[in-house]
Amino acid sequence: MKKLINDPARVVAESLTGVARATEGAALVDGHQVLVRTARDEGRVAVLSGGGSGHEPAFSGYLGPGHLDGAVCGEVFASPGVDAVLAGIRAVDAPTLLVVMNYTGDRLNFGLAAQLARAEGRECAMVTVADDVALDADDHVTAGRRGLVGTVLVTKVAGAAAAAGWSLDKVTVAAEDAARAVGTMGLALSPATVPGGEAGFSLGEQEIEIGLGIHGEPGVRRESLRPADELVDELVETVCADRGIGDGDRVVVLVNGTGATPPMELSIVLRRVVENLGGRGVRVERCWSGTFLSSIDMAGVSVALLPVDDERLELIDAPARSAGWPSGSGRLSGPASEPVPTIAVAEDSQVRSGDGTGRLRAAVEAVCRAVQDAEEHLTELDAATGDGDLGTSLTRGATGVLEDLDTTDLDDPVATLRAVAASVRRAIGGTSGPLLATALLHAAEHLDAAGSSDETLRAAADGIADLGGARRGDRTLLDALYPAADELASSGSMSSAASAAADGAEATASMTARRGRSSYLGERAHGHPDAGAEAVAVVLRALAGA
Amino acid sequence: MKKLINDPARVVAESLTGVARATEGAALVDGHQVLVRTARDEGRVAVLSGGGSGHEPAFSGYLGPGHLDGAVCGEVFASPGVDAVLAGIRAVDAPTLLVVMNYTGDRLNFGLAAQLARAEGRECAMVTVADDVALDADDHVTAGRRGLVGTVLVTKVAGAAAAAGWSLDKVTVAAEDAARAVGTMGLALSPATVPGGEAGFSLGEQEIEIGLGIHGEPGVRRESLRPADELVDELVETVCADRGIGDGDRVVVLVNGTGATPPMELSIVLRRVVENLGGRGVRVERCWSGTFLSSIDMAGVSVALLPVDDERLELIDAPARSAGWPSGSGRLSGPASEPVPTIAVAEDSQVRSGDGTGRLRAAVEAVCRAVQDAEEHLTELDAATGDGDLGTSLTRGATGVLEDLDTTDLDDPVATLRAVAASVRRAIGGTSGPLLATALLHAAEHLDAAGSSDETLRAAADGIADLGGARRGDRTLLDALYPAADELASSGSMSSAASAAADGAEATASMTARRGRSSYLGERAHGHPDAGAEAVAVVLRALAGA
Repeated sequence: MKKLINDPARVVAESLTGVARATEGAALVDGHQVLVRTARDEGRVAVLSGGGSGHEPAFSGYLGPGHLDGAVCGEVFASPGVDAVLAGIRAVDAPTLLVVMNYTGDRLNFGLAAQLARAEGRECAMVTVADDVALDADDHVTAGRRGLVGTVLVTKVAGAAAAAGWSLDKVTVAAEDAARAVGTMGLALSPATVPGGEAGFSLGEQEIEIGLGIHGEPGVRRESLRPADELVDELVETVCADRGIGDGDRVVVLVNGTGATPPMELSIVLRRVVENLGGRGVRVERCWSGTFLSSIDMAGVSVALLPVDDERLELIDAPARSAGWPSGSGRLSGPASEPVPTIAVAEDSQVRSGDGTGRLRAAVEAVCRAVQDAEEHLTELDAATGDGDLGTSLTRGATGVLEDLDTTDLDDPVATLRAVAASVRRAIGGTSGPLLATALLHAAEHLDAAGSSDETLRAAADGIADLGGARRGDRTLLDALYPAADELASSGSMSSAASAAADGAEATASMTARRGRSSYLGERAHGHPDAGAEAVAVVLRALAGA
Repeated sequence: MKKLINDPARVVAESLTGVARATEGAALVDGHQVLVRTARDEGRVAVLSGGGSGHEPAFSGYLGPGHLDGAVCGEVFASPGVDAVLAGIRAVDAPTLLVVMNYTGDRLNFGLAAQLARAEGRECAMVTVADDVALDADDHVTAGRRGLVGTVLVTKVAGAAAAAGWSLDKVTVAAEDAARAVGTMGLALSPATVPGGEAGFSLGEQEIEIGLGIHGEPGVRRESLRPADELVDELVETVCADRGIGDGDRVVVLVNGTGATPPMELSIVLRRVVENLGGRGVRVERCWSGTFLSSIDMAGVSVALLPVDDERLELIDAPARSAGWPSGSGRLSGPASEPVPTIAVAEDSQVRSGDGTGRLRAAVEAVCRAVQDAEEHLTELDAATGDGDLGTSLTRGATGVLEDLDTTDLDDPVATLRAVAASVRRAIGGTSGPLLATALLHAAEHLDAAGSSDETLRAAADGIADLGGARRGDRTLLDALYPAADELASSGSMSSAASAAADGAEATASMTARRGRSSYLGERAHGHPDAGAEAVAVVLRALAGA
């Protein structure tokens, strides 16, 4: 596994230095891998957490006003020692709550540090979080239930209570109650790889592990990858059943990526978690997805549900500023039991204002038929120098315009150009659609403003140049359109303009493309005129004839 | 590549639904993959962004007060169509700024939508971001410079300006200026895999791609993976050289993970970015790391530097609440040019208060020597049922205590127990160290409080049970310590207590372990006494003898 590191032995020190850099008002405790906030309100309870590293942003990334005051960081997946924890407690120098995940090493080291701190006359309490619902505690007495990402919600509750000026006893009770309430379950698609080491376990091509711990400890079972919704339903069902969450209950949700899970997948999971909870009549008060507690580079997800009442929700909502906590409110856009809110926007409506029997209809029809007739010729040209789809694209556009004719305004040239632009845009799409549509729109706007057609071709060409970023000489349709525009402006004759376009198209045969797909061909395109320029010649010839 | 999805064809729709769910005051526009904020201040400029999907949280994840008002989402790595963009503009129904990354499809579709919106009489402007400094624009005229994660900073500037009530012209100028100023460069360790498709490119075991685009477009070159600091230095150097950033300049920094990059690695990178900039005399005003603009599941990093003056920094600092923007202030803990701040905490100091020639010294020495003498015996026992390290661990502890004797208070039993606890804790570590230390501390506390030694062994046993969570009968050292405590309490004789401990240790030979490593052996441990219980017998026998 490739990693952006310098030295496997220094990953914890260096990554903690990075977090320390970007944490306002924080400092590292001399001689220890401990980060504490130095800018703290006098007399407030301090909340410390920590444990083995490799779970970033947990917990150093949660240092900030309203959340954690300190994080004591062990080596990767290894508990910090007693002295490091004690140094953290001494550094914050305030009544302290330790929030610890239920792993033996953490419990022993933080627990003894708390005793030593009390022996020094300090107020110090400890809350252990064991939110893992995958393991039935009675069947796994050796390990007990493990601490998972629900711990982050417990620290948030504790941090908010401390920031509100609560006593150590009250902060501890709030954290304990939250720890008892929260339930979490996860799954992994790939194992974690300890820097410089090996993957903690291995999974087959299509195998996943359900209900595992944050260091890759064995889960409930292995099975084949299934659709996300089925997996999410199992996670949510298990947490709800274990924690007794059901109809009418209110919860806060974390959808946690385990380190290498893309945000897109987390959002797909979040969508189903909310849907599932809504179906149970559970009220989703807040919901966030993100990487809250990682397992180095494990790909996977865990879902934590914290039941809340008004008081606990207020603590979750209380402002917290940290690198790892999102700024969004977490409030849903609408009730979980209902579909996502939508709003309707009026689409274009085209109403024909005249009978359209005059010259404009004839001109539009003539151009469209000419484009249809030229399909094979344009396809051949484009196949030689581009991706070969110009003929069919333009024919699709011409057909679309003809199909829309009965609802197209054909009495006013400005309205006609705009309507044709809309038809072309919808029928062609891709990059050609917008470019042709903008040409027609610019022509319409110029005609509308100037009242004369002499400069309409130039307006169209400028529109394309502006939107597409091409210039004359780049071997594009502009090399036919600009000469035609010059001719129309000086002679006022569409026939002469059409001839100029044909000459311009011919001249592209010796040009080297600088934009679009044919630019990759370089001089190999020489000898073939550009298909787009040729199309301009076709269109203007038909227009002159009409 | 395994993914947490349901159907490759529905990843965008489902992930956008997830984002829509968790975005307060947002709604999907009917018939389009467009998310807009419906709860907006009347008359404020709306800021819209978007583009191909697969870059989450960009841009749907930035919807929220103070940042984006809408996100128009194409399929994976494909620009949304003109009509979707137009629907977004119509839905926000306000003077609108479109912030677009410099890719042809996005430029054309957003650009034409802006024209159409203006044709409808709406105020609409567009800013294109091309922050990619990897490509020299003159050498790559076909593609031009690409939009990268710097775009997120441009949207933040625009969103803050709009929220402050600025006019569309002023918001546009602020965004344009930021877009011209920002520079970004990245590298990939692994390619992105489009759901249901294949990886966009492939990389060898130790190969990386430097300077690539957000869809995996080719970069500057491929090379072997080097230490992170070297790679970071090249990225920072290139951005600084291109953007003219140097001594005395002020910048805002984003360290962006490309989808599958663990937070730990991003922090290691951030650390070096700040160090490098500090060395150039650049003032790092704000710095965040996280996944700001992903390339599905690409592992890699990009670094964006946005030069700022007071006005632009104020816009970056302005409150924004969204799923993707972090809550932390981004302010450093200290100047980039200096090391991370540290604070010193007083360590334990042990000063001998007496000459330590009396009975206490003799007792401590006797116990330590007995433990040293029993090393081989304990190792044999532990090897049969545990991991075999108990003998060496305890000997290490005994040696540590003896080495510390000259600075140990040996006149007062309470102080002596505390000092020995500290020596044991430091010398042993792991799980045994804290457990033995807590036993000694609890004994000390009890002695201090009660003034009598009758219940000290029980206090020690309770301390271990409390911290470690084991009970009598679990086949641990408690099965020797509790019988000894009972005997000491009733008879007051340490000799009798030592005998009880020996009997208790013997009895563990027929017990089944419920905690710790030997629990995995089950009944296979039968016939061997527990090594920890035997150690207790050794210690008490020595103590009784002293």
